[in-house]
Amino acid sequence: MARVVTFGEAMLRLSPPGRGRLEQARSLDVWPAGSELNVAVGLARLGDAATWVSRLPQNQLGRLIEAHARANGVETAHVSWSEDGRLGLYFVEVAAPPRSTTALYDREHSTFATLDPAELDWPAILGTADGFHVSGITPALSQSCARATEDALRAARASGCHTSYDVNFRRRLTSPETAAARLEAVVGLLDVLFCSPQDARELFDLDEPEALRERLGVRMLVFCGRERRIAVGETTETHERPIYEPLDPIGAGDAFCAGFLHERLNGGDLRAALEFGEAMSALKLTIPGDAPLVHPDEVSALRAGATLPVQR
Amino acid sequence: MARVVTFGEAMLRLSPPGRGRLEQARSLDVWPAGSELNVAVGLARLGDAATWVSRLPQNQLGRLIEAHARANGVETAHVSWSEDGRLGLYFVEVAAPPRSTTALYDREHSTFATLDPAELDWPAILGTADGFHVSGITPALSQSCARATEDALRAARASGCHTSYDVNFRRRLTSPETAAARLEAVVGLLDVLFCSPQDARELFDLDEPEALRERLGVRMLVFCGRERRIAVGETTETHERPIYEPLDPIGAGDAFCAGFLHERLNGGDLRAALEFGEAMSALKLTIPGDAPLVHPDEVSALRAGATLPVQR
Amino acid sequence: MARVVTFGEAMLRLSPPGRGRLEQARSLDVWPAGSELNVAVGLARLGDAATWVSRLPQNQLGRLIEAHARANGVETAHVSWSEDGRLGLYFVEVAAPPRSTTALYDREHSTFATLDPAELDWPAILGTADGFHVSGITPALSQSCARATEDALRAARASGCHTSYDVNFRRRLTSPETAAARLEAVVGLLDVLFCSPQDARELFDLDEPEALRERLGVRMLVFCGRERRIAVGETTETHERPIYEPLDPIGAGDAFCAGFLHERLNGGDLRAALEFGEAMSALKLTIPGDAPLVHPDEVSALRAGATLPVQR
Amino acid sequence: MARVVTFGEAMLRLSPPGRGRLEQARSLDVWPAGSELNVAVGLARLGDAATWVSRLPQNQLGRLIEAHARANGVETAHVSWSEDGRLGLYFVEVAAPPRSTTALYDREHSTFATLDPAELDWPAILGTADGFHVSGITPALSQSCARATEDALRAARASGCHTSYDVNFRRRLTSPETAAARLEAVVGLLDVLFCSPQDARELFDLDEPEALRERLGVRMLVFCGRERRIAVGETTETHERPIYEPLDPIGAGDAFCAGFLHERLNGGDLRAALEFGEAMSALKLTIPGDAPLVHPDEVSALRAGATLPVQR
Amino acid sequence: MARVVTFGEAMLRLSPPGRGRLEQARSLDVWPAGSELNVAVGLARLGDAATWVSRLPQNQLGRLIEAHARANGVETAHVSWSEDGRLGLYFVEVAAPPRSTTALYDREHSTFATLDPAELDWPAILGTADGFHVSGITPALSQSCARATEDALRAARASGCHTSYDVNFRRRLTSPETAAARLEAVVGLLDVLFCSPQDARELFDLDEPEALRERLGVRMLVFCGRERRIAVGETTETHERPIYEPLDPIGAGDAFCAGFLHERLNGGDLRAALEFGEAMSALKLTIPGDAPLVHPDEVSALRAGATLPVQR
Amino acid sequence: MARVVTFGEAMLRLSPPGRGRLEQARSLDVWPAGSELNVAVGLARLGDAATWVSRLPQNQLGRLIEAHARANGVETAHVSWSEDGRLGLYFVEVAAPPRSTTALYDREHSTFATLDPAELDWPAILGTADGFHVSGITPALSQSCARATEDALRAARASGCHTSYDVNFRRRLTSPETAAARLEAVVGLLDVLFCSPQDARELFDLDEPEALRERLGVRMLVFCGRERRIAVGETTETHERPIYEPLDPIGAGDAFCAGFLHERLNGGDLRAALEFGEAMSALKLTIPGDAPLVHPDEVSALRAGATLPVQR
Repeated sequence: MARVVTFGEAMLRLSPPGRGRLEQARSLDVWPAGSELNVAVGLARLGDAATWVSRLPQNQLGRLIEAHARANGVETAHVSWSEDGRLGLYFVEVAAPPRSTTALYDREHSTFATLDPAELDWPAILGTADGFHVSGITPALSQSCARATEDALRAARASGCHTSYDVNFRRRLTSPETAAARLEAVVGLLDVLFCSPQDARELFDLDEPEALRERLGVRMLVFCGRERRIAVGETTETHERPIYEPLDPIGAGDAFCAGFLHERLNGGDLRAALEFGEAMSALKLTIPGDAPLVHPDEVSALRAGATLPVQR
Repeated sequence: MARVVTFGEAMLRLSPPGRGRLEQARSLDVWPAGSELNVAVGLARLGDAATWVSRLPQNQLGRLIEAHARANGVETAHVSWSEDGRLGLYFVEVAAPPRSTTALYDREHSTFATLDPAELDWPAILGTADGFHVSGITPALSQSCARATEDALRAARASGCHTSYDVNFRRRLTSPETAAARLEAVVGLLDVLFCSPQDARELFDLDEPEALRERLGVRMLVFCGRERRIAVGETTETHERPIYEPLDPIGAGDAFCAGFLHERLNGGDLRAALEFGEAMSALKLTIPGDAPLVHPDEVSALRAGATLPVQR
Repeated sequence: MARVVTFGEAMLRLSPPGRGRLEQARSLDVWPAGSELNVAVGLARLGDAATWVSRLPQNQLGRLIEAHARANGVETAHVSWSEDGRLGLYFVEVAAPPRSTTALYDREHSTFATLDPAELDWPAILGTADGFHVSGITPALSQSCARATEDALRAARASGCHTSYDVNFRRRLTSPETAAARLEAVVGLLDVLFCSPQDARELFDLDEPEALRERLGVRMLVFCGRERRIAVGETTETHERPIYEPLDPIGAGDAFCAGFLHERLNGGDLRAALEFGEAMSALKLTIPGDAPLVHPDEVSALRAGATLPVQR
Repeated sequence: MARVVTFGEAMLRLSPPGRGRLEQARSLDVWPAGSELNVAVGLARLGDAATWVSRLPQNQLGRLIEAHARANGVETAHVSWSEDGRLGLYFVEVAAPPRSTTALYDREHSTFATLDPAELDWPAILGTADGFHVSGITPALSQSCARATEDALRAARASGCHTSYDVNFRRRLTSPETAAARLEAVVGLLDVLFCSPQDARELFDLDEPEALRERLGVRMLVFCGRERRIAVGETTETHERPIYEPLDPIGAGDAFCAGFLHERLNGGDLRAALEFGEAMSALKLTIPGDAPLVHPDEVSALRAGATLPVQR
Repeated sequence: MARVVTFGEAMLRLSPPGRGRLEQARSLDVWPAGSELNVAVGLARLGDAATWVSRLPQNQLGRLIEAHARANGVETAHVSWSEDGRLGLYFVEVAAPPRSTTALYDREHSTFATLDPAELDWPAILGTADGFHVSGITPALSQSCARATEDALRAARASGCHTSYDVNFRRRLTSPETAAARLEAVVGLLDVLFCSPQDARELFDLDEPEALRERLGVRMLVFCGRERRIAVGETTETHERPIYEPLDPIGAGDAFCAGFLHERLNGGDLRAALEFGEAMSALKLTIPGDAPLVHPDEVSALRAGATLPVQR
Repeated sequence: MARVVTFGEAMLRLSPPGRGRLEQARSLDVWPAGSELNVAVGLARLGDAATWVSRLPQNQLGRLIEAHARANGVETAHVSWSEDGRLGLYFVEVAAPPRSTTALYDREHSTFATLDPAELDWPAILGTADGFHVSGITPALSQSCARATEDALRAARASGCHTSYDVNFRRRLTSPETAAARLEAVVGLLDVLFCSPQDARELFDLDEPEALRERLGVRMLVFCGRERRIAVGETTETHERPIYEPLDPIGAGDAFCAGFLHERLNGGDLRAALEFGEAMSALKLTIPGDAPLVHPDEVSALRAGATLPVQR
């Protein structure tokens, strides 16, 4: 099994139960969240040795996050703790169509955003890791987070570790220009870039995966659309996505990354990696919360085409 | 923004959570309800000055209703309070197809049904209002409610106020003959009549909006079918309705009226009013409870065709 | 085991969960209720053959009540069903001291209150029953209920059946004068009368059990105070009540009646009946809802003085 | 109305609320379950006199099951009680597609599985019953349960009672060979056999109802596929099934059996029985839990094609 | 009835249900909070015209707060709205003894703390108000909040309005020195100062109300201890507090202020004001959440010594 | 910090919410449980390196337990997994007095009870551990569990590791004679024995700690009564216990053991260990569920006598 390190902020997601409105909520469901934490959880549940690097406030909310990571088998030895600061939050209304699911972010001034990049000894953290993963959210959080992201990718590249980056553009966090610039600063250090068509358009005004790959000069681009995913590298693979009504639409992209990286870092080919990622993503959409609480047997069953409504 | 007065009974809706059966319920979700209250809530949330005229029992349930109205910005100064009497209730099982959602009414002997029409000084209540709205439920509740409805419509007409009436036939409340007679008694006072094809058939044995409009001699008829809405007046406008699986099917007609009236009374044309009403109705169907707890930005986004599954 | 018939109205109790306020409730817990139904449930759970005579509306709420009675082993063959009418409701806020638990009744116009006494063939219903029990709530509901109560007691007396009556004065239902008059009309037919000191004061301005017994000329009076219960008949027995903080204060009197009657009708002496009733009452206070959902083993354990905090 | 006896184990189903994962559950919804109990509940709710024969542990869980049966009008006089033993459980994750709903059984060593067939006096239990129903789960539970099943069917046949058997193969309970053998041991005693295409394939490697009927030599086979049900006997009837998204996919087969048997045993023809069963099954799929908590009026409305989204 | 203006921040309180731990919470109960908002709610519910002055973010959480204020009859016309900024939060674990209830604040960088004092036109806001109330939390939030507090008190004093100030020291918000300094800057403008013995000790190292009153030179000091409250002004009144186990210990001080001010501003004497405040405080302790959701009748009943466990 | 190994079975506790009855439960709260797991959780939360040795079924319930252990920082590398078998369950009704909290066990045939002692290489598992802890439940589960317990204690003793044993007699699991015999078989290997007065009486008919210590010849006996705890060894220490109403009475003994062992193994004296254990136990009683989800700061605050009702 592969050893993978991810780096990013954790948040608490707070959502009204039963698809109710935030404005009328009398209680909120609590879900640990954070793109890179979700990827680490997915990898650990698939059997990889996943380490999540982050910074948390030393209070009950920080401990709730750590408990979630550990419960799912993620190594948290490289999480640092701060006496001050806060845990980022976001309030999500999961909506039925035609209303959109919306996120109200309250993540400014978080402990993570104010981390000191100098305190992260990346060669030591990475050790003999096989892979390093980060999303574009991390460098978007602050200058120091951008710095730490770059340090990490350089160290990973230096140690021969596979590097991946999920664009994950958040317009409520940063401008398209900044997001594009921070990606371009590190794109030369990447083995795989994950990007949605929408982000490609907003950041680079490009619609085609080939054009984007050329523009960025990245080794492999995985272009993740709602109807299909296309991996463009030395070869090109396309994977059509079946459509299901999601129970919870958040975290599917992270689940895909976890599945893709798991298969890839354990020796699978590109097609298998797309399929594995897709299975993880499809399963995640049936699970409440942000994290891909999937069991490997379920991925196998889905890939094998098991379609019984009830298994017993 | 327009000033609008609505007049009608409030009830408490009690529904088993999670689409369970009433017969096995151990708890019931509580939702403030009432057609004209819903319209007032919709208007107030869209920014209009909405006044809801009603009568409530002076107890915790009456206060629960008032708190709901006020929380949503509805003016309640013209709600009168009774030491006796009860608040009407209705028990709703929201069902998945092919089972129908059903309503078990327990609204007899309510404080509202026994109001004294002489106590309502409509010219004073209406003041400089731009619109007055009522549904056919109000006159169906009792002779005195029918009297008060007629008084209100006459006063509204006298003050030059726009008048609207939503047929809203409830076969568990009154006979088709009574409902038709009470409508015909006031139809000459109306600017707009809202009616569903099913009610047209049950009350007047008519299937076509034009025929119904002629029969009633109403200025404008908005014929609200499940697949399309047709406004028939000096001109005719048709609006096709997209179909979504409703989260909660109750209150969509009231939401439509609120949206239609909002647009109309603030100067929108007929097409815009149908679209606005449709957007309100479609959004309501995604919201648990009877009231259209919608924000104007959501209407704008939906009308602009925003279709992202997640906005962040 | 004894065969006992009780006669009275059922209601649904609706209470905000977690000791919240009715006015802010978003959901309400649902509990089947009704004094004589509670007594029947208690008796059936203790092993007696309990029949509950009543009238219910033929709808989901009526069926919910019947399901509750049957689930607890109560015979419902003598419940009649009405196409019209409603089930009585009451809204209860269970409060912590110093705030009082309060009941908001909404039981007017119920199916039960409008029953036709002529339809109840008491000799047939009673058959070979050993006991008949009713509370003062039943005759307070309507003239026809008072009539049926008297019919039932006469028939019970004629058949040699033990008769009992729990005063249960409800000032929100009737005046003290009416309650006193309806009791006095039947007191000569009673074997046992249950009365609280407070009701004795309000109905008869009497504070002492002996004085009340004399005034009413009843065979046996069980005077149920908060600190002690005193049975006054040919002999007098006093039973001190230990004090516990109740989890749910409603239904304790009914539980007492069930326990007292169970012991008495199965041959226990007066002291044993008071103890058994007290145990039932004390256990009920630890159980949410109105019904004494007690198991005979628990009564035995409590009477035997078992005081382990945890049994395992 | 018909008198029907069913024979089988009850279990408690425990399911995470809101389609959550078992692994992250903090609470579990509790549903009484058991194929033959479900059939009895369905029959009793339709107005038949249904008796359920079983064995339960004398503890709170056993009593919970009995209360459920009685609440729904099922006769439990022939349930025997054991001081030892346990109630079987199963943990169900109801999932949205493409994830399958899964059942984790924990029913070994149950009180029922260890019953003594000699204690069941079938001629006395059956009395003048019109029908006897069992599923293949019962004989699969243990040798003694298989023995008792055979005894029951012989006695039923001897008394001229209609006999039915639902294959209900559970691969987590027994092998296809054992299931086939236990069915073949009694198939000559059956009037109707219910079987799914999947079970036909797994037990007998047959895909066609005619072939299966011939192979087993059964009088009537009802072949219950996802898209259609086919009754093959002296005549053949086919009934297409409309497709709806189930709220809870468990118990639909039992609901079908109840509806089919109800119609059949009360004199309906084969087509009516298939339709009635289908209506029961379709309604069950809209109801949370295993039991068909349906009212006869709902079956009538559905068969009459009522399709209003809201009835009021 | 009096017209009263209060000024302060609103927050959302998030608490695990059922006295669970934050660290293991899967859902959080949501309660609108804020000391001066609580006072305004209390006053409005008692019948006074209460205006709450504040600043909220223009998002769902801000609207949730406004809805709460309006539902309780509080005037919100002087709440200003910000496109940016966040609503303060605090996470509360309500604990049973011997564990303390704890608050984890997350209120930094709130919209309120960054308000611009120049935008508040206090003479216009106060108009003909009879009273103005603020707590020490407001000036502790930021320099600009301290400025606005002083402006408000000066304007109130200039308009002849009664002024009150509740010390409410929060050690997690500011130092004792700063809290003392900000109080001393305005103490000359106050009619009434509310202070707990603990705050007196931490801010001024004083234990006796007389000493504190002298030190601060305040007209009237209400010294609010756990066992008694002492009002020291021209005369001294002492009020012993009965002890009850609180259901929710937060907000009792605000409820006291509301009751005290209500009685005082409507002409009650000092003793009556202490009693009224105590009743409000005692009732609040029985109500979940921060706000004193009390009805005037309950205060009357409690002051009259009503002690029935159940009222019906 | 100390390294401690515990050995025992995990179960799932299922409890009706809100102190309801199991018999009427519609949902059950889920709590990971098991005496030695609780001790490990307590130690890990206090900062010790706690390893829990056990055996779990490879299914969702087994994984739920492992997630709980890991979330709390317990090392689970020595948990073995079984394809077969079941997780033990117990159903708990937490009751208010005078009703006792009761446990209905359903733990027979568990994966743990059928473990193979030969597969546990205790010298390797213990490594350089400082302490080993087990309760009397483990040897009571089966012959093989008794064997493994003895092996573990011998190995621990051989490696110079501190050994402790909590009697924890469960009369629903084994007889007093067996429990006594299994304890006597290993008592010579123990450093500390924890025993309640009730267990002393039932197993050895002894009431006094000194007598029990002599009879068993154990080095140190900690005698844990409801009103005081007495440690009897070379010296004697007595610690009076303050009384609080427990929120959840289960797991307090395990919390005490964790606190006592933590202090003892980290060098504290006997008095400090009793105090630390008491603080852990008192805090546990305020926390729902079986596990002592306590933070070291809370223990410090309680030992320092912090008694504020609210800390903020």
